[in-house]
Amino acid sequence: MAKRVAIMGATGAVGNEFLKILEERNFELESLKLLASERSAGKKLTFAGAELIVEELTRQSFTDVDLVLASAGGELSKKFAPIAVDAGAVVVDNTSAFRMDPNVPLVVPEINGDDIARHKGIIANPNCSTIIMNVPVFPLHRVNPVRRIVVSTYQAASGAGAKAMAELEAGALALLEGREFVPKVLPHVAAFNVFSHDSAIGEDGYNLEERKMILETRKIFHCDEILITATCVRVPVFRAHSESINLQFTQAISPDEVREILSGAAGVKLVDDTERNYFPMPVDASGTDEILVGRIRCDLSQTDGCGIEMFVSGDQIRKGAALNAVQIAELL
Amino acid sequence: MAKRVAIMGATGAVGNEFLKILEERNFELESLKLLASERSAGKKLTFAGAELIVEELTRQSFTDVDLVLASAGGELSKKFAPIAVDAGAVVVDNTSAFRMDPNVPLVVPEINGDDIARHKGIIANPNCSTIIMNVPVFPLHRVNPVRRIVVSTYQAASGAGAKAMAELEAGALALLEGREFVPKVLPHVAAFNVFSHDSAIGEDGYNLEERKMILETRKIFHCDEILITATCVRVPVFRAHSESINLQFTQAISPDEVREILSGAAGVKLVDDTERNYFPMPVDASGTDEILVGRIRCDLSQTDGCGIEMFVSGDQIRKGAALNAVQIAELL
Repeated sequence: MAKRVAIMGATGAVGNEFLKILEERNFELESLKLLASERSAGKKLTFAGAELIVEELTRQSFTDVDLVLASAGGELSKKFAPIAVDAGAVVVDNTSAFRMDPNVPLVVPEINGDDIARHKGIIANPNCSTIIMNVPVFPLHRVNPVRRIVVSTYQAASGAGAKAMAELEAGALALLEGREFVPKVLPHVAAFNVFSHDSAIGEDGYNLEERKMILETRKIFHCDEILITATCVRVPVFRAHSESINLQFTQAISPDEVREILSGAAGVKLVDDTERNYFPMPVDASGTDEILVGRIRCDLSQTDGCGIEMFVSGDQIRKGAALNAVQIAELL
Repeated sequence: MAKRVAIMGATGAVGNEFLKILEERNFELESLKLLASERSAGKKLTFAGAELIVEELTRQSFTDVDLVLASAGGELSKKFAPIAVDAGAVVVDNTSAFRMDPNVPLVVPEINGDDIARHKGIIANPNCSTIIMNVPVFPLHRVNPVRRIVVSTYQAASGAGAKAMAELEAGALALLEGREFVPKVLPHVAAFNVFSHDSAIGEDGYNLEERKMILETRKIFHCDEILITATCVRVPVFRAHSESINLQFTQAISPDEVREILSGAAGVKLVDDTERNYFPMPVDASGTDEILVGRIRCDLSQTDGCGIEMFVSGDQIRKGAALNAVQIAELL
């Protein structure tokens, strides 16, 4: 059944990717409306060879819409998602606005697609780092419950939007040419540097991105007991996040078992070539749908055989955001 | 007492830094001999305003030398360090050749400077990632023994030498200009990418760099029981390594206790400004002697209060290599 779709935040990095993914996957569309701020209204974007004009997002934008794919920031989602729902649309929201709302399903289709049935108009798309960790960890957790995760991330500039990607590029060029560069989008120079994720830090010292990885994973896994600690770090990469993931399972588990489970897992691709020293890299993950998984080995520091180390890379804009949201829409 | 010093591998990234550090610290020199391969012999390097000519490293190089600072690769150290010792010199070796030899002290001066007394001609300088982790962890371990470490690294190109640094620069420029770039020094494109450390991988799936962090830490700490797992990753940064370090202590410990211990610890500088979201970054660590430490917080996944998370950055060429070796020499 073809749908009348609106994209909120159509001119952003994720908005742009929505267009690509809807086209690639031949998503059945009756109509497609591109919504953005007044500033971006009138811009032209290409979809399936046709030119579409971006419209200003207003309270009246949703009268003829079945499905909203929202990625225009949390504040705008908080304001406009209820309006869209009142107008009869279902909203797949890519912001953090509703993720922890007990009335809103938080969904990774490969994991908890069934939760979509409980929606009341809004379905939340998880944080990008959370999705990229959860897709490979959940198939293992289903077989052998994960008790604890210690994760450190290597996050791309794209997580801070298209402007941050452009700033990484401009900053790198400036530094290579010996010019000074003062960042405006990101809090620190991204090029040839690494810095702690630029989100607000709570009383407990964890930043918001880390908190999302912890709380959202519990909600998606339907498992409040799982212990998680995360350190979220930005690296000078354009659009794919990587993560070093240390797992403690309930029962002993071998790397071969992990590989076997993951080789049949949806959304996962094993890249674990020890002989060639070839493992997941953000340049390889960029533009692909799967989460690349490798460096799978027994954690030598867990002497009971219940520990596994692995390293993953996933496209932040695709599976970390736009693809996952479109997959949710496909399940609707 | 002024020493007759020879630098093996004088034209490399670490060799160059030896010259800077000897000058900065007014190391008492009677003579300074620069040794390198036949290919580099005849090159001129500047030291304290004077020009020195690089000589070819031969079996006869050490007759008039008291101290050798060696950083020309493991194979050359294996060959020439015993020759230098036979000639009466003491060798501070920056390669992995002798680090795990039970007859060779492996020293971080802030931690186990006393071990130097046991030397039989050769003293080993630890791996860079090991030093950068150990300097801030040991002062805590001394107060409250560390039972387990889970570390993920963000390692600079400098660890693979001056040529890798140049390749990062050339690769970044090529990619920014839309040109193809085929790396020759590193196994993968370094610019705008992240990849698993390019060292040989053992049967257990750990690479050599990770193995060094595990085994060398035990030797330096004089603590075979400490459980360590490491994931070593290269990031597009020029010369400072960062590390996300998760610690499990024997007793409960608070972030304030950690800050208090580390604020008085040699070689450590706290950079832990939660309000400004300002933490250790490789651009700040580059060119400095201290290991920067921040993001100090209770690990929420260790419910007994014995867990601490922290993030560190340290100059790979200085404290990770040349500075530590010169500090060893100063203790001799």
